[in-house]
Amino acid sequence: MTSFVFRRQITVEFGHCDPTGTVHVPRFFQYFDTNTWMLFEAATGVDRRDFTATYGILPLVDVNADCRKPVRFGEVIEITSRVTEFRRSSFHVEHRITVDGELAVDGGETRVWAVRNKDDPDKISARPVPNDVIARFS
Amino acid sequence: MTSFVFRRQITVEFGHCDPTGTVHVPRFFQYFDTNTWMLFEAATGVDRRDFTATYGILPLVDVNADCRKPVRFGEVIEITSRVTEFRRSSFHVEHRITVDGELAVDGGETRVWAVRNKDDPDKISARPVPNDVIARFS
Amino acid sequence: MTSFVFRRQITVEFGHCDPTGTVHVPRFFQYFDTNTWMLFEAATGVDRRDFTATYGILPLVDVNADCRKPVRFGEVIEITSRVTEFRRSSFHVEHRITVDGELAVDGGETRVWAVRNKDDPDKISARPVPNDVIARFS
Amino acid sequence: MTSFVFRRQITVEFGHCDPTGTVHVPRFFQYFDTNTWMLFEAATGVDRRDFTATYGILPLVDVNADCRKPVRFGEVIEITSRVTEFRRSSFHVEHRITVDGELAVDGGETRVWAVRNKDDPDKISARPVPNDVIARFS
Repeated sequence: MTSFVFRRQITVEFGHCDPTGTVHVPRFFQYFDTNTWMLFEAATGVDRRDFTATYGILPLVDVNADCRKPVRFGEVIEITSRVTEFRRSSFHVEHRITVDGELAVDGGETRVWAVRNKDDPDKISARPVPNDVIARFS
Repeated sequence: MTSFVFRRQITVEFGHCDPTGTVHVPRFFQYFDTNTWMLFEAATGVDRRDFTATYGILPLVDVNADCRKPVRFGEVIEITSRVTEFRRSSFHVEHRITVDGELAVDGGETRVWAVRNKDDPDKISARPVPNDVIARFS
Repeated sequence: MTSFVFRRQITVEFGHCDPTGTVHVPRFFQYFDTNTWMLFEAATGVDRRDFTATYGILPLVDVNADCRKPVRFGEVIEITSRVTEFRRSSFHVEHRITVDGELAVDGGETRVWAVRNKDDPDKISARPVPNDVIARFS
Repeated sequence: MTSFVFRRQITVEFGHCDPTGTVHVPRFFQYFDTNTWMLFEAATGVDRRDFTATYGILPLVDVNADCRKPVRFGEVIEITSRVTEFRRSSFHVEHRITVDGELAVDGGETRVWAVRNKDDPDKISARPVPNDVIARFS
């Protein structure tokens, strides 16, 4: 578990909700994806536009969400994200969504640290997570 | 594992893809959600518009996806879904996305069988999955 | 043209962009929709969750966007919205997206001021825009 | 008005609808975008994956929708698209959504015929619409 934590608050938008009046579950994974970008921006100081050129890409290989309670239109939610583990060429991010301090969604992403092959940009190769990046999270 | 299987083929739309040129991962969960609706329509014969009045609602409590390979803009994909287990008042649906017969995404949803409370529609109560529904899947 | 203006800044998210690396145009209409909710919250002081009970609903009848220049992943954009005209039971909102002060998207929404029919919630009826609402915008 | 028409039918998905139980308006523009891709595939015989390499890109410069009646979850809709006009280096596509033969949404897109600059792929240049493409639409 790294110690660097990224938090943001958003108000649930109308278009994020389905006919139940609560957040359509796939949308949580957009919240997670954006939080991962913001977490890495905050930790490394590298703007998201420069991330690929500086470090590479972070393709998702595994993602999950445990939905404890529905999140309603107009609620203010807090999305808290942190890297729980850096492995050799991948890492796991934990994302927790709370409403009024109560856990509503408990999710996670596993991503690979990778670069696109110069000769064939459709192919990617895993790379060790740089030590200087890991250092920024502790 | 029930024996009833629902399959559909779609061509990946431009707007489903992110700047990598491949499906934005949150979108897979929309594919899953729609497949669950279609699976239950196919198995029970109840139109999705009548499902809530006939049976109730099926809130997601857990969802995950293991992304084995990227799925690209314009590829024809097959999404195959089946209920792997009915429990007392919940069930698990397996969703597998293949491209040219190769597994690209292996996902799952756990949903509760529930009804909205008459006095307070914001509250829901779990209900046993009806035997006639389970029978339609075997 | 009313004088009340609502502005917000957002950074373009990865999942808002398509394979061109720029915002997928349908997404602009989600930005507009959310800005309209925020504009009415700011002007009337009524939380979006209470808006329907307090006033009614605001169905879109016409929407358009003139896309002057692409908006890229990671750019900070400003979305500025104002009601340009209140008619008897409808109104028009102008939405302008700028990047570094340059106009990128020039859009608009026409919405009806309406309530759901008590006997048949699928039907809606137009209502005059309340004078106290109009007053809050000037 | 060209004579080539592309039509498809879809059933409105749960995740396409907002808390009103009807299609969230921005989603209509995703339907339009996909129909334009399918219209050009059908008319030219070029797969959407090869379109950019064969012809170039088709950035949207103007888009609009007139929403005549709400489109509900689970309804079968038909989306009919045709090019109404080819200009020198742009064209206009009309998109009409009907439900049970009744017009629900009447929309349009204006797009430029363009290529990315070889030296600076962020810049694009308009090109005359090729005569062989125009011929395929009549």
